[in-house]
Amino acid sequence: MNFASDNTAPVCPEIMEALARANHGNAMGYGDDEETQAFSRLCSELFEREVLAFPVGTGGVANALALSVLVPPYGAIYCQEDAHIDVDECGGPEFFTGGAKIVPLPSPRGKLDPAALAARIANAGAGVVHHVQPAAVSITQATELGTVYSADEIAAIAGVAKAAGLPLHMDGARFANAVAAQNCSAADLTWKAGVDVLSFGATKNGAMAAEAVIFFDPGKAGDFAFRRKRAGQLYSKMRYISAQLRAYVTDDLWLRNARHANAMAARLADGLGAIPGVELLQPVEANELFLAMPGPVIAGLQADGFRFYVMGTAEAPVVRLVTAWNSEAESVAALIASARAHAGVQA
Amino acid sequence: MNFASDNTAPVCPEIMEALARANHGNAMGYGDDEETQAFSRLCSELFEREVLAFPVGTGGVANALALSVLVPPYGAIYCQEDAHIDVDECGGPEFFTGGAKIVPLPSPRGKLDPAALAARIANAGAGVVHHVQPAAVSITQATELGTVYSADEIAAIAGVAKAAGLPLHMDGARFANAVAAQNCSAADLTWKAGVDVLSFGATKNGAMAAEAVIFFDPGKAGDFAFRRKRAGQLYSKMRYISAQLRAYVTDDLWLRNARHANAMAARLADGLGAIPGVELLQPVEANELFLAMPGPVIAGLQADGFRFYVMGTAEAPVVRLVTAWNSEAESVAALIASARAHAGVQA
Amino acid sequence: MNFASDNTAPVCPEIMEALARANHGNAMGYGDDEETQAFSRLCSELFEREVLAFPVGTGGVANALALSVLVPPYGAIYCQEDAHIDVDECGGPEFFTGGAKIVPLPSPRGKLDPAALAARIANAGAGVVHHVQPAAVSITQATELGTVYSADEIAAIAGVAKAAGLPLHMDGARFANAVAAQNCSAADLTWKAGVDVLSFGATKNGAMAAEAVIFFDPGKAGDFAFRRKRAGQLYSKMRYISAQLRAYVTDDLWLRNARHANAMAARLADGLGAIPGVELLQPVEANELFLAMPGPVIAGLQADGFRFYVMGTAEAPVVRLVTAWNSEAESVAALIASARAHAGVQA
Amino acid sequence: MNFASDNTAPVCPEIMEALARANHGNAMGYGDDEETQAFSRLCSELFEREVLAFPVGTGGVANALALSVLVPPYGAIYCQEDAHIDVDECGGPEFFTGGAKIVPLPSPRGKLDPAALAARIANAGAGVVHHVQPAAVSITQATELGTVYSADEIAAIAGVAKAAGLPLHMDGARFANAVAAQNCSAADLTWKAGVDVLSFGATKNGAMAAEAVIFFDPGKAGDFAFRRKRAGQLYSKMRYISAQLRAYVTDDLWLRNARHANAMAARLADGLGAIPGVELLQPVEANELFLAMPGPVIAGLQADGFRFYVMGTAEAPVVRLVTAWNSEAESVAALIASARAHAGVQA
Repeated sequence: MNFASDNTAPVCPEIMEALARANHGNAMGYGDDEETQAFSRLCSELFEREVLAFPVGTGGVANALALSVLVPPYGAIYCQEDAHIDVDECGGPEFFTGGAKIVPLPSPRGKLDPAALAARIANAGAGVVHHVQPAAVSITQATELGTVYSADEIAAIAGVAKAAGLPLHMDGARFANAVAAQNCSAADLTWKAGVDVLSFGATKNGAMAAEAVIFFDPGKAGDFAFRRKRAGQLYSKMRYISAQLRAYVTDDLWLRNARHANAMAARLADGLGAIPGVELLQPVEANELFLAMPGPVIAGLQADGFRFYVMGTAEAPVVRLVTAWNSEAESVAALIASARAHAGVQA
Repeated sequence: MNFASDNTAPVCPEIMEALARANHGNAMGYGDDEETQAFSRLCSELFEREVLAFPVGTGGVANALALSVLVPPYGAIYCQEDAHIDVDECGGPEFFTGGAKIVPLPSPRGKLDPAALAARIANAGAGVVHHVQPAAVSITQATELGTVYSADEIAAIAGVAKAAGLPLHMDGARFANAVAAQNCSAADLTWKAGVDVLSFGATKNGAMAAEAVIFFDPGKAGDFAFRRKRAGQLYSKMRYISAQLRAYVTDDLWLRNARHANAMAARLADGLGAIPGVELLQPVEANELFLAMPGPVIAGLQADGFRFYVMGTAEAPVVRLVTAWNSEAESVAALIASARAHAGVQA
Repeated sequence: MNFASDNTAPVCPEIMEALARANHGNAMGYGDDEETQAFSRLCSELFEREVLAFPVGTGGVANALALSVLVPPYGAIYCQEDAHIDVDECGGPEFFTGGAKIVPLPSPRGKLDPAALAARIANAGAGVVHHVQPAAVSITQATELGTVYSADEIAAIAGVAKAAGLPLHMDGARFANAVAAQNCSAADLTWKAGVDVLSFGATKNGAMAAEAVIFFDPGKAGDFAFRRKRAGQLYSKMRYISAQLRAYVTDDLWLRNARHANAMAARLADGLGAIPGVELLQPVEANELFLAMPGPVIAGLQADGFRFYVMGTAEAPVVRLVTAWNSEAESVAALIASARAHAGVQA
Repeated sequence: MNFASDNTAPVCPEIMEALARANHGNAMGYGDDEETQAFSRLCSELFEREVLAFPVGTGGVANALALSVLVPPYGAIYCQEDAHIDVDECGGPEFFTGGAKIVPLPSPRGKLDPAALAARIANAGAGVVHHVQPAAVSITQATELGTVYSADEIAAIAGVAKAAGLPLHMDGARFANAVAAQNCSAADLTWKAGVDVLSFGATKNGAMAAEAVIFFDPGKAGDFAFRRKRAGQLYSKMRYISAQLRAYVTDDLWLRNARHANAMAARLADGLGAIPGVELLQPVEANELFLAMPGPVIAGLQADGFRFYVMGTAEAPVVRLVTAWNSEAESVAALIASARAHAGVQA
């Protein structure tokens, strides 16, 4: 009954099987293997164009390495408030870029506001040596607040970025949840809407430790291969990273896992949102919920063995619940029942 | 029949089973899990003292991160010629240390010469601001040439390092092979001989993607934890890295795997060394062989389907053969037979 | 009639004479000279305690190098909004620190708000590896808005910093103007109030190219000397940097220059502030003025040959005027008269 | 009687006068001034083509910044043994490039051997992600051993560099001495011979603190302007750096100063070389001498008040003498006489 994070979930069976399948005989190292090649091909199919896909080990590395080929050391990277790259990677993007500056901007409902972005870029002093230079825009899909960008919303941001000559990066740690939440394709929510590079997450959605950096225009990958090696991210037994990713994009596994997680989140939203005193602080569009709850309800849930993070302040605690590919309907129902009970709602 | 590298080998069954075993239920992320704790405990047992062990994903990261807490950005790191940190990591150590300088020194048989080290440090200009400052010594065990350092040899180097106030790092990508090759313990070949930090390799010796940085004096780990996170090496589902390592140090798996690889290398050395025209260029003490062979023998082996790297020059090619935990006695025998045949040796 | 910046002013005569005086015979390089030693001694006198003073060439370098010994690459540096280190150094502090994050905080009247600082630090996640770590506080004296911190105001900030174990850096590009503006000593406004390191500016106040980084606790200078050399800031003919600084702190030259600049700014404030439609946007406490003016007045001043920057927006332009050691009373009077005329004020 | 270094010399009168001349009225900062523009024009004349010239404050910065726009963080920079960039800048080039690796190569008489360069590049593993990538070649003119490259020698190195697609940088801390020593032009010894970027030294040859980075193909200056600012090297009162450089290249001042220094070195070589037991270890082609001398002669010179560095080892000391624009014929004669006397040569 762990709702602390989708990264507390185990590896899904299909990916465990893929690892076992990949584990036979010798294979050349560093990506010169069948699994990596197969994943590469499947990626181009999935995104409906020839892409360049680089497997790496963590989402933090995926984001930081992707940005490192987009921006100079004195570049500015614009992102939404509370972006993972700004607040949760211990300065990783600064490290990998050699010192770029991350500039968080107003982001209602977790989504970067195109007007705020345009205003900031306009005042950034592009071309003036005294100032860090506008260099890239990064958005998170699904967002840190559990909402999702529509293709149009992405296009609006991309429009502002392109007008300033800036590439658009997407932190897709929960990209699957965002696609699953909408009636559109992976292509629709990325390059067709103006995304240049995607950190395509798998770990939170059923993999063991595997993410991929996808360049939609292979010509813009620059020296990524060298930077990946230098960062110690060119795994010698790459086949095992790639096997995870290959399974992930086979037979819609990534979407099936995400749909389940989203469905469980929706169920939680319905059940909890109906409890007097409980408030959904953000629309629940993917697999995360942010809720205001009376203190006794929070304490009651904890006492009943549910694990989750409580954020916000002592006066205004915010409960975050995250569902995953393995969240059980029984656990969801149990959590709702527990909350109702502690809120004093009659059964 | 792949002798190209020990990293072409698959994952050994014990480690695959450990991954399967770890794959149940939810577990907190980032190392706050049972597998990581268990590995930590076993490490202290294995090394016969309280150590601090940090799992990471690759050997390149292990080395670079370890060095990053030992040296300032203007530090000099002394190592043997052809050290992996100097020539095979695309500048990784420079990246992680913020610009330290790697200084390769004369290294007969692949082993750093203590006298050369002492002379270099003496002339380094310690304390003089114009020069990079002596900051660390790094040795590789087993060496890049398939030889191993004895405890006394390590102690001699450590003595020079300590006299200059420098910490001693050991790149142990093949540490298991070095221990297996000698009648001594992991402690004997590390802290008891003066090693401060070990990059403890597992990937080449049966794991999937797992190494550990071991600080023998936990007080000297400095800010490793922050640097690991910043480098994108704090895996969210850490349990799967740690499960590999836990299995690796359980029931002597690491030594059993290494002993097998070493034995196969010894068998190759015996068989090939007896062929006229074939010369062992280095003592075969671990799981790597470097050989001079007539061109037709090399070509013949390749034609017979054996995979390996040919180094050196066109005039003086050097064949490198590497054995692994899974090298089969039949393959070894077949290779020897093939070489004998192409060398014109009567059966 | 240039009010664009105090760095448009020439070098004051006393400093030109000092350079000429220093220009005789040979002298050992890199600071092992009489001028540097004399400046060092005078600094300790000026600040009423034994300090460590490092001459460097620019204010940007002074700030960035000072911070580089205070913070780790994953550190957070808290500063006021619009701090020079955040917006005017093209990412210099990020470069010199190896990637630290600069965190601008609410700063009414250009002064960092201690309560905002305390709140931010409290929420920074100190000790948690996912987040950049609180590492230093930096304030600018005089501020970027032409106001000055009192000793008490500095002490309040230092109190918050110390409570969190953070050092306090002062960007003193216009430190002289701040001291001249108040009835207190250099010591009062620095270490006695809790400042650990000062970037002591001279260039804007009459020097040619000379600043000094002052560590009030010499034991906390760390490896500054090595970092200065590595940054290419250990001038071979250091005597000429030091000679400027020596003259600067001799016979109160630094204060005399600053007092004049401040007096001219005050005169401008009086004269311009009395013109209907002209508004002083900030208290004028040092040598900078920020004013709202009707467009025609701005245009009129420009047409009359006065040079200055116009900031803000097209709808709400902000005129910045800066005075210097050489600002002439006649020019000041002329500017006021011009503004009055264009504002339609009767003579 | 200081022969320790040319950086112990004072500033020559023409440059002091230029500083005084520049010191009138206000001027816009950061290079938007008449002195900088004039120097820029004169540079293009001097080098007989349109160049981009960036004034900076020290030679260390000139080299490091120049290299930073030529090489990626994982690049290899090939240079002669004992190159200043490798051994005398406390890791500055590594810092400014973000971690590039400096590779010293065999260099008879202080000059990079083109064949050794070609061999090293051929074995560098260009295009292979495991290795740092060949990125630039850097030579020093005049060399660290007081010899000079002829135009043909430079062209030979440039030929190797170009064949590998690498730019050629010249550390010209003593470029003037090299030009003065040969019957050819500044253009002959730079771009006409294949040099892409020159660190054009002035400080050692009569200036106070001024060097210029010269890009012979302005299109290859890349983002130098941003990197210079970020490094804190965009002086606010740039006119004073530029005024030094303007005077330096006016009326052949740079060559006149260098010719004098060279002539004094030649006189020393003639006088000392004739003393039995004294040996010139390198050809004296510019303004540095390296000599073997009997211990008593060295001690005698020191006792007579001559200042110079003694390098090498206790058994085989090497005396280095450096002349400068201000070396007096009397001091030179006195040194020779002193050496003769201590060597027991009859007058």
